[in-house]
Amino acid sequence: MRKIDWADGKIRIIDQTRLPEEEVWLSLSSVEELAEAISSLRVRGAPALGVAGGLGVALAARQAQESGEDVGEAIARAASLLASTRPTAVNLKWGIERVREVYDPELPETVDGLIERARSMVTEDEEINRLIGEVGADLITEGSRVLTHCNEGALACVAHGTALSVVEVAHKRGLVAGVTATETRPLLQGSRLTAWELKRMGIPHRVTIDSGAGGLIASGEIDFVITGADRIAANGDVANKVGTYPLALAARASGVPFVVAAPLPTIDLRTPSGDAIPIEQRPASEVLVLGGARVAPQDTQAYNPAVRRHAGRPRLGHRHRGRRRPSRRGRPAGPD
Amino acid sequence: MRKIDWADGKIRIIDQTRLPEEEVWLSLSSVEELAEAISSLRVRGAPALGVAGGLGVALAARQAQESGEDVGEAIARAASLLASTRPTAVNLKWGIERVREVYDPELPETVDGLIERARSMVTEDEEINRLIGEVGADLITEGSRVLTHCNEGALACVAHGTALSVVEVAHKRGLVAGVTATETRPLLQGSRLTAWELKRMGIPHRVTIDSGAGGLIASGEIDFVITGADRIAANGDVANKVGTYPLALAARASGVPFVVAAPLPTIDLRTPSGDAIPIEQRPASEVLVLGGARVAPQDTQAYNPAVRRHAGRPRLGHRHRGRRRPSRRGRPAGPD
Repeated sequence: MRKIDWADGKIRIIDQTRLPEEEVWLSLSSVEELAEAISSLRVRGAPALGVAGGLGVALAARQAQESGEDVGEAIARAASLLASTRPTAVNLKWGIERVREVYDPELPETVDGLIERARSMVTEDEEINRLIGEVGADLITEGSRVLTHCNEGALACVAHGTALSVVEVAHKRGLVAGVTATETRPLLQGSRLTAWELKRMGIPHRVTIDSGAGGLIASGEIDFVITGADRIAANGDVANKVGTYPLALAARASGVPFVVAAPLPTIDLRTPSGDAIPIEQRPASEVLVLGGARVAPQDTQAYNPAVRRHAGRPRLGHRHRGRRRPSRRGRPAGPD
Repeated sequence: MRKIDWADGKIRIIDQTRLPEEEVWLSLSSVEELAEAISSLRVRGAPALGVAGGLGVALAARQAQESGEDVGEAIARAASLLASTRPTAVNLKWGIERVREVYDPELPETVDGLIERARSMVTEDEEINRLIGEVGADLITEGSRVLTHCNEGALACVAHGTALSVVEVAHKRGLVAGVTATETRPLLQGSRLTAWELKRMGIPHRVTIDSGAGGLIASGEIDFVITGADRIAANGDVANKVGTYPLALAARASGVPFVVAAPLPTIDLRTPSGDAIPIEQRPASEVLVLGGARVAPQDTQAYNPAVRRHAGRPRLGHRHRGRRRPSRRGRPAGPD
């Protein structure tokens, strides 16, 4: 099931803020509703946001055409509104522009072209991730106990995901004995989203605290570690969710395969090495406040990078959120 | 200020459950009150529990003597009640027995001896940790940015702590530029307790999510990593709080000093290697429930070791809680 799609002239999404308690699907019938859904993180994940931006522009164009308004103006309004919802989410802007560029005011029939372009983004994302799963699963041997980090799954994309697509295909081939998901502090994408996806796929799984993963690897309880990537520099350095680097170190120390699953546009040849990727800080409250209560003393500061850049040898890992520079050809990289 | 002490015929403790919001000191005037304080984790940490057990037996003996009850029976009752509060806490039993063994029913004056023994445990714990700080601080160079894990501080002991004792002395010598404390999921001893101790000592500090520590080390922002130890095997393997191992790997990868601060009895020559130290699992709810709400799907399992054993080369790290076997001579090892 696609987590975001065009359906009967509306945009259909799963509401990620309700997971894992409830599976709620929303049918968004206006750009304003979509903007609210993006602001509220009902739809999140870089590829999903790119698709959302494209679908939003198509929706605005179609509605303007039907009501006799100026299509060009409606597109401009939609682009501006959507882009303002997550100012640093370059995927969103990339998706908006990718559909917007189809519009030609001289040709009224281009509205159909806009919708076609937006829908092709949906199928393209799905197909790329399906292929990542097929290719990646060839690396997994029978009975493998897999460890993954953050949510590199269908929820961040249209379908399948990157790292979780590999797990999905390997599971269908009967190769997966079980999956351990890191909880992924501070926002718990592992506990909330990856565990939900694994449960839905019927894959035996468990959640570990992030710092417990290294010990699991060292004690021989993990056969295969797989993550996504936010950006891969020209020299092979990988930027990914904070916490990826310690997993890579532990895998190397124990001789366990560590695989990064990402589509081609994630490789950014204009970035010479990981050092050129900026580190973005997120709010301290994500670390210091739990369940509404502050857990650390007043005045205590927090270090809370969304993004870490690291070299592959031996530095690796960590994720950049939102500031990713999309490739001009093809879609920007994996889920956040 | 001692975090547990004998004061005016009562047992004085700081209530750790109220930290970091409030600094509440309790004066416990009966073994029942002490038992409640231990059960409720108002006093915690292996060395502190050992001292609590000793002080509790002394308190029972003194009160029985004053009220004309049978001192031997009162000691037996107190020992039984206190031991039942934390069944796996061997330090507690060790402390109880260390004072109880002084009792001689033939000699009424032995009650004074019990109190003397219990109070000597307090001063001994304080002095050992003070010395650890002095010796350890010699390893720290000026301007050091220090990283520590869990709470290896005064709160787990009578005073000073182990790793934090080193930080305390180095800070007094003007060597510490700042300290990063890992939050230490799932129970957040770093955010709640270590940050509180650092703030109280006036040391600039911040909290990082556990998985962010490796990246900090790799990017050159940490000069010195220090942790405590739960047990050190004859071959040098260290068992410590889960999450210690990935820190050791990251320190090694970046050539940053990684130091373990522990008193002599932590070295257990009867344990040949880390493999002989059992892994104890704690409740899944510590990982899967946050602020009263379940964060993972129903049926999702959790991996939640309190203790991990690991070898020093290259396996290291992780903490064992409660099942520690105390040395027959001297006190059992560091804080949990």
